[in-house]
Amino acid sequence: MKGFKFKGIAAGIKKDGKKDIGIIYSERPAAAAAVFTKNMVVAAPVVLGREKIKSGSCQAVVVNSGNANCFTGEQGMADAVNSAKFAAEGLEISEELVMVSSTGVIGAPLPMEIVKQGISDLTKNIKSDNSAVDCVKDFANAILTTDTFVKIVTRRCNIDGKEFTITGIAKGSGMIKPDMATMLAFVCTDLDISSDLLNICLKKASDQSFNRISVDGDTSTNDTVLALANGMSGAVLEKSDDTDTAGFQKDLASFQKDLDQLLFDLAKLVVRDGEGATKVVTIKVKGAKTAEDALKVAQAVSHSNLVKTAIYGEDPNWGRVTAAAGRSGAMVVTDMIDLAFEDVLLVKNGEWQGLDAEKKAAQIMKNDEMEITIDLNLGDYSDFYMFCDFSEEYVKINADYRS
Amino acid sequence: MKGFKFKGIAAGIKKDGKKDIGIIYSERPAAAAAVFTKNMVVAAPVVLGREKIKSGSCQAVVVNSGNANCFTGEQGMADAVNSAKFAAEGLEISEELVMVSSTGVIGAPLPMEIVKQGISDLTKNIKSDNSAVDCVKDFANAILTTDTFVKIVTRRCNIDGKEFTITGIAKGSGMIKPDMATMLAFVCTDLDISSDLLNICLKKASDQSFNRISVDGDTSTNDTVLALANGMSGAVLEKSDDTDTAGFQKDLASFQKDLDQLLFDLAKLVVRDGEGATKVVTIKVKGAKTAEDALKVAQAVSHSNLVKTAIYGEDPNWGRVTAAAGRSGAMVVTDMIDLAFEDVLLVKNGEWQGLDAEKKAAQIMKNDEMEITIDLNLGDYSDFYMFCDFSEEYVKINADYRS
Repeated sequence: MKGFKFKGIAAGIKKDGKKDIGIIYSERPAAAAAVFTKNMVVAAPVVLGREKIKSGSCQAVVVNSGNANCFTGEQGMADAVNSAKFAAEGLEISEELVMVSSTGVIGAPLPMEIVKQGISDLTKNIKSDNSAVDCVKDFANAILTTDTFVKIVTRRCNIDGKEFTITGIAKGSGMIKPDMATMLAFVCTDLDISSDLLNICLKKASDQSFNRISVDGDTSTNDTVLALANGMSGAVLEKSDDTDTAGFQKDLASFQKDLDQLLFDLAKLVVRDGEGATKVVTIKVKGAKTAEDALKVAQAVSHSNLVKTAIYGEDPNWGRVTAAAGRSGAMVVTDMIDLAFEDVLLVKNGEWQGLDAEKKAAQIMKNDEMEITIDLNLGDYSDFYMFCDFSEEYVKINADYRS
Repeated sequence: MKGFKFKGIAAGIKKDGKKDIGIIYSERPAAAAAVFTKNMVVAAPVVLGREKIKSGSCQAVVVNSGNANCFTGEQGMADAVNSAKFAAEGLEISEELVMVSSTGVIGAPLPMEIVKQGISDLTKNIKSDNSAVDCVKDFANAILTTDTFVKIVTRRCNIDGKEFTITGIAKGSGMIKPDMATMLAFVCTDLDISSDLLNICLKKASDQSFNRISVDGDTSTNDTVLALANGMSGAVLEKSDDTDTAGFQKDLASFQKDLDQLLFDLAKLVVRDGEGATKVVTIKVKGAKTAEDALKVAQAVSHSNLVKTAIYGEDPNWGRVTAAAGRSGAMVVTDMIDLAFEDVLLVKNGEWQGLDAEKKAAQIMKNDEMEITIDLNLGDYSDFYMFCDFSEEYVKINADYRS
């Protein structure tokens, strides 16, 4: 991927000596788009980010872990602004072209002496340091909190025979010990695309990935998906009249598909690394009366502690799935429900298919990935959600006193 | 309490020899009202109950545990109808005057030979057996599933100097091992009140009690609150012109207050006995912009696994409470939030009150009951929810294979 450099170092925000501050630098200003948390309680970097993204342009992103800069009042906002300023000075670019993100404990002020020194170390040689092109993993490490592995997905794509690359880096989902943490994702591409188009594509792709996953049903104050496109590959995505049979612009549809897949893969890694998670489950809802109903059922099943604990226990407890559907607020008729674990039908027209089917389903549940399909048989709408199971480990992680 | 008899026996539906079928019998037909689960997936007894309650009259209730008679198709409905019929025959009363409830495993058909014999044993001598007046505890035991204690609350009340009694019996909340179970509550009173008035009062009282508690956020297919009033105390509640300053009928307001308190106490017992629960917490929401907002925040906090695990860990993790409020869908402004654990203010105008306050809050959390108050400072609406904490034990209970 052309023109992007990455760096990640241990500046000392985290007490354990792990990497805790990272930077993404683009050799030229990139078109930028972002999706932020819908939580009404947000951290300073999100408040600042919402303003900055309006320009549609960004050249550098500074991300720290170990401190979320949330519930930190006016000082917190000043610290976010100054972090961007320090980076801009180090990189000799406009302050407006620098975005900041934070994740970690809340309430405590950012240790600005440490942050300032860290940013200085990150920016000092990055322009001349060509090896920084390959330091994605250092950056990916620097943004982790309780994650157990780095999350990087890269896709090579092309438009009109011209190649370009998309790289996505994410960190742990849900709200995590030691406090609430954050789902952060950064998507870099050397495609040439306007910020308006990038914004549309990013929102669509996020909606079918990060907005379709559940670890514990809680959203955080810092969740951010940020995309940068610096155009340095030479591949250009422009609005054109070249449409497919459905009337979509062919190039746009192609990029959307790539971005969808990349974000989906990243989101799956986030679920896979859910706190205490041992399994990844996709719930597919079919036959809903409305699109809203389909989503409601998918969400209710994904967020049900009873479903999640049953999955952990490898118990094909379909009754919990149907009951979650029933309380979702969607139109559900008991006698119409079909329910399957993978290809094993457990309920047909609301009737239990017997112990043999359950035994087969129990076998399937030993896998670490599975699909549950519920067909409401009431209409044409479908949707899905991806979620993880729920183990004693989750309780242990989240009951511990913050330390 | 005059004119009510109770019985509970071990008929053999449960394999462990515990009581599993019980009856409430009123010497005369009682005015009746009921509140059923809002889950769209419901068990046969609920479908039947919704029809039967329309008459506003009931003389006997048969309740079995160990089998929920849910997802049992036409046979399940026939079994529910026949259970009522057997009881009516044994008691020599009209079939229409008998209600049935079931709780326990789903999918499996009711073992009707056992149920028939059980109902025969329950009804045989109950009319002449005066000791059955005092057998509330036997009945309360017969309706339990994974509950660890019986739940009975009695209040002595009076209207115009005439005494009457209300007795409420409940069983475990949430959806429980070995499958989904049920929140069942039966309220008996010897007050003379019309079924219409009883219905209004029961709905109000349920809304401020059973509809304000959360164990795991799942509702079941069988949830039922049923009230019977046989009028045998001589105390009569009639519509009258005797109103208080607010324009409420005094007697009605007095009964409502008694019923509210009784159901609240019962609901609290249900939370206290939540699976794996070690603490009962009340979240009070103040200063919401709308009534709906107040409820949304109370619900979001009560259902948050992160809040529940923090309570279990005795960690005053206020950030999880504010984040849950922020994602509730209600209007929330970070800088306006005040948050207190009991009388310890942790957040004032969105700012953290420091480590000393947190240490005090941590002390409070060692108690097995506590109150969290969040003031949004945006309006005049308030609401509350009662919930329990979330321990490894909950996961253990719910991950076990149904057996």
